[in-house]
Amino acid sequence: MNAEIIAVGSELLTPFRQDTNSLYLTEKLNQLGMEVSFKSIVGDSREHLAEVTRIALARAGLVILMGGLGPTEDDLTREAVADALELPLVRDEAIVEALRKRFSKRGFKFTENNSKQADIISGATVLTNRNGTAPGQWITGSYDGNEKTIILLPGPPHELKPLFEEQCLERLREHLPPAFIASRVLKVAMLGESHCDDRIAPIYRRYPNVQTTILAYAGEIEIHLRARADSLEVAQQRVDKVAEKLEDELDEYVFSRQGESLEQIVGYYLQMRNATLAVAESCTGGLIGERITSVSGSSRYFLGGAMVYSNELKHKFADVPKALIAAHGAVSRQVAAALAEGIRKRCGATWGLAVTGVAGPSGGTEEKPVGLVFHALSNGESTEVVERKFPGDRERVRWWASQQALDMVRRKLM
Amino acid sequence: MNAEIIAVGSELLTPFRQDTNSLYLTEKLNQLGMEVSFKSIVGDSREHLAEVTRIALARAGLVILMGGLGPTEDDLTREAVADALELPLVRDEAIVEALRKRFSKRGFKFTENNSKQADIISGATVLTNRNGTAPGQWITGSYDGNEKTIILLPGPPHELKPLFEEQCLERLREHLPPAFIASRVLKVAMLGESHCDDRIAPIYRRYPNVQTTILAYAGEIEIHLRARADSLEVAQQRVDKVAEKLEDELDEYVFSRQGESLEQIVGYYLQMRNATLAVAESCTGGLIGERITSVSGSSRYFLGGAMVYSNELKHKFADVPKALIAAHGAVSRQVAAALAEGIRKRCGATWGLAVTGVAGPSGGTEEKPVGLVFHALSNGESTEVVERKFPGDRERVRWWASQQALDMVRRKLM
Repeated sequence: MNAEIIAVGSELLTPFRQDTNSLYLTEKLNQLGMEVSFKSIVGDSREHLAEVTRIALARAGLVILMGGLGPTEDDLTREAVADALELPLVRDEAIVEALRKRFSKRGFKFTENNSKQADIISGATVLTNRNGTAPGQWITGSYDGNEKTIILLPGPPHELKPLFEEQCLERLREHLPPAFIASRVLKVAMLGESHCDDRIAPIYRRYPNVQTTILAYAGEIEIHLRARADSLEVAQQRVDKVAEKLEDELDEYVFSRQGESLEQIVGYYLQMRNATLAVAESCTGGLIGERITSVSGSSRYFLGGAMVYSNELKHKFADVPKALIAAHGAVSRQVAAALAEGIRKRCGATWGLAVTGVAGPSGGTEEKPVGLVFHALSNGESTEVVERKFPGDRERVRWWASQQALDMVRRKLM
Repeated sequence: MNAEIIAVGSELLTPFRQDTNSLYLTEKLNQLGMEVSFKSIVGDSREHLAEVTRIALARAGLVILMGGLGPTEDDLTREAVADALELPLVRDEAIVEALRKRFSKRGFKFTENNSKQADIISGATVLTNRNGTAPGQWITGSYDGNEKTIILLPGPPHELKPLFEEQCLERLREHLPPAFIASRVLKVAMLGESHCDDRIAPIYRRYPNVQTTILAYAGEIEIHLRARADSLEVAQQRVDKVAEKLEDELDEYVFSRQGESLEQIVGYYLQMRNATLAVAESCTGGLIGERITSVSGSSRYFLGGAMVYSNELKHKFADVPKALIAAHGAVSRQVAAALAEGIRKRCGATWGLAVTGVAGPSGGTEEKPVGLVFHALSNGESTEVVERKFPGDRERVRWWASQQALDMVRRKLM
């Protein structure tokens, strides 16, 4: 069965707001074995909404509308779907009563416009909204001689998601032939997209019953695998087989097999080895520390470090000799190495990690162009330095540099 | 005239990819005085695409299709639009020749499938694509007795944007009645959305000829104002009048009048006063430094600082007495103040800024719950400390904390 998603709201037709709910819903529907065949974005117009609903009902077995269920005059999804289905709206007094209670319990005044949230399309099942005032609605019935299901969901994601999970998933599963779908995500660090695809395309093309999607970001590639079969076991086997062959091909470039982030993986390895990390950041200005500490519990392996933006602080916080900076420049292999070892010693960490480079857009020279970054990792016995020239603007260069630095730790500890 | 946007590509119907081009196009169309009335997302199906194009042509004066112009079998936008218009496709041999030259110049082999990019809908104007192989197309003609314009654009943003700006904007302007539109963006820091709206709604509601859009993020609100008039001068006056009244009402909460970010504004003020800044970050782990150094040229006023994630480093890098931490705990007013003054002195900066808190999800206690953060700013003579309890998850708490910290610097220097 195919599904169609309609996002409702004039704000979604401005340059400022984007529908993101549909990505979540698509994932859930895919897991049930359904594909999304169309998405539409419609403003708060009863006529437009009814028309789009009619078009969708003619094309898809399941139509989901999101938004436009609130109490204001602009909220017209109920009315429009009733128009499209040629069914009356019936006010449910029990819902009005529950709304009144909800308002008085919170000390708010109940205004009459709120009652319209209790208008139910004749024959619909009410989907209670734990996190908001507007309930959802579920209608299954015949349209033009075919059985169709329409679901009305509230727009705010924190209302939509629990409502869909608690009250729609099971109901949908009952309506559908059993589907067994397995999926896997592999993540790859510091490999170019076309290079990666050149290596893996000959493999995944041999398995057309596994759907492969490749998403490329700066310094990171995600490979999504999905397979459908008559049993979960077979679906899982199909996905695992392709995953295994891709892992063999990409070898140590693959850093994550279950969707973990690079900063999580670095944390796992550090904990596993009872090691601690300190960082000294010049051009990244705190980005590496920010990424590492975005993981809850990172205090178990991350001590901290310094943002050594000025040369003075490279000396003060990481004991880089001033003469070294004078001789080679702040952006150099030598200073990167001294920063890594200096911050390690200062912080008493097992590993010291450092970055110094030219993030741009200004500050580049012929010898040291924008995008040139030195990364260093030291454990007191030896220091590894990696020199890279990254493409893109300031934001991208800094991101690449943080990615390269974290990947050095991963490779050293894996 | 109303416009309708159709984004083409099966990848846009997966959970992984989202159309973002339409936000850009909507902004450009709004600036010409056009509103977008529908958006549709359609997969790589010739039949689906032709159907959606027909529906769009019946509703809108301008229909823009993005994507599906490449050389592969999945690229079917040309064929589908020709179907919808009942017009033939004509291969333009001059374009084929140009493609051949482009390929050989770059040392690539020209494969025959590339020729389909030269298939032009009969009567269409070719829109040359500087940044890719597939040209765009522009068709103006009668459909069901009404004049309609259809534009076919390539999907990749770095191809679509210059092509649209260089070859579509002027052509569209010629087709439209002259429209004069002025806009302004005000940004507001650390004010709740509903509180902000309570204060400004009575003002902007009095000016229905200025369109007001309020966008709320964690610790930041954007107020977008837009007006249309018979001359640019009048449109600008309308927008400026409302902007002025909103600024009066919100007073020092408004930090940006021309779209600048908070970190840019903090940088302006520091430079203006010939002052320098150093930071000591505990729970934010580098986020404040990262935000400040995201601005090019920040080395003129930002010296650096320390990520004092462990208590040991609070002492080592910012000279916080160990006894102070033992007496009050690392998350305390006293330690925040000591961090700010300690890092200021260590770095030799005019201002020292520090943050310490419980980012969560673990580590909270009854006395010091998740979300509790102390922020401190010192200039050596006096130290200001702000205690806040932020809502949300780890990421949001850390963002709020960085926002509050930067806003303290702004308020002190403005």
